[in-house]
Amino acid sequence: MTAEPRLVEVRRNILKQNDVVARALRERFHEAGVFVISLVSSPGSGKTTFLEKTLTLLFPRYRVAALVGDLATDNDAARLARSRAPVKQITTGTLCHLEAAMVQKALEEWDLTQLDFLFIENVGNLVCPSSYDLGEDVRLVLLSVTEGEDKPLKYPTIFNSADIAVITKMDLSAAAEFDEKLADHNLQAVRPGMEVFKVSAKTGEGMSEYLEFLERRRAGSPDGAAV
Amino acid sequence: MTAEPRLVEVRRNILKQNDVVARALRERFHEAGVFVISLVSSPGSGKTTFLEKTLTLLFPRYRVAALVGDLATDNDAARLARSRAPVKQITTGTLCHLEAAMVQKALEEWDLTQLDFLFIENVGNLVCPSSYDLGEDVRLVLLSVTEGEDKPLKYPTIFNSADIAVITKMDLSAAAEFDEKLADHNLQAVRPGMEVFKVSAKTGEGMSEYLEFLERRRAGSPDGAAV
Repeated sequence: MTAEPRLVEVRRNILKQNDVVARALRERFHEAGVFVISLVSSPGSGKTTFLEKTLTLLFPRYRVAALVGDLATDNDAARLARSRAPVKQITTGTLCHLEAAMVQKALEEWDLTQLDFLFIENVGNLVCPSSYDLGEDVRLVLLSVTEGEDKPLKYPTIFNSADIAVITKMDLSAAAEFDEKLADHNLQAVRPGMEVFKVSAKTGEGMSEYLEFLERRRAGSPDGAAV
Repeated sequence: MTAEPRLVEVRRNILKQNDVVARALRERFHEAGVFVISLVSSPGSGKTTFLEKTLTLLFPRYRVAALVGDLATDNDAARLARSRAPVKQITTGTLCHLEAAMVQKALEEWDLTQLDFLFIENVGNLVCPSSYDLGEDVRLVLLSVTEGEDKPLKYPTIFNSADIAVITKMDLSAAAEFDEKLADHNLQAVRPGMEVFKVSAKTGEGMSEYLEFLERRRAGSPDGAAV
């Protein structure tokens, strides 16, 4: 009734090719000394607002840049450019995720040795991006307080494949009747020990703890603990 | 670098097979006299809460039932069952959308002539479900006020493939500083003439207008106008 087995086989080949490119990217990032963070989340979780705030706060002290994936528009690149950091849009058409080859192509003309942090914002999707390594050092999954505390259980693969979680829109926490304990419980259920940050890009709440974590990770502490 | 062309070819074959099954489903639905509505949206847009409210409000007057797709859990089926309507969960594993064959299989043992309305809740995803016809009469896309007014522009295919739009969580509209005019403008830009309902499943706001629309459509008015 469906050609599922054949699709799975083709997907495996694509994933294998993606892994080869991702490995090459990771080596290039390490040689250049740039620390790379990818962001995944559902559409509307506040990825772009959060990233704009991140870039703006890091910009005075670090050399930062961003790649941003979207199906159809370059709205995100325009918004992120307000941070004054270099930004490049990757338009994926109908594809629901970024692939390592797209990142490689987008970076062709960039001198990565001139960067301290590179952020890669994936297409808004809690399913497709989970299997595609982009050569990043840290994969960050965002969850907004308005989405419901059950999302880690419902999309376990993406939460499990992420290194850290950021709960966004904390300023709406009371209005959305967000249950912080339940969200923590569900995150730990799919990814035990996962580091979780709670932020509001609007008010700035929680941003400094998260940025300090990134700085520590960049400085070489594998678990983000002070070195 | 990527096997994209071959994947596209395989996808086309799957879509073709899906269309054949969807056509058979649509005939079966029409013969049985059941009106079928599918729901698509981003994860966390409030699909399940909205559907629970819909089922609860229709239940006293109509014979209603629901199928609900999710990657990993049957939480949604448990929530929807509180409406007392028959509900069946379809677990898709890692697949980011429902296919017509899954709907067909889930309905194998159901006597559709005993139903007035059947609702099909897709996996939370604004990309993948857009190309898969499920034999529905109406495809409904949900957008919550906390997701941002730009989503129709960023995910044009799914908004364009939908018949009606429902803006959810209107009770959070002020807290989220939702720009109603901008959202309307963006919806009309990707799907001119699209009917848009604004609701809060929590307070009940807007639910009756939307339900009256479904009743009119079921009664045979193609544009939902009173007959």
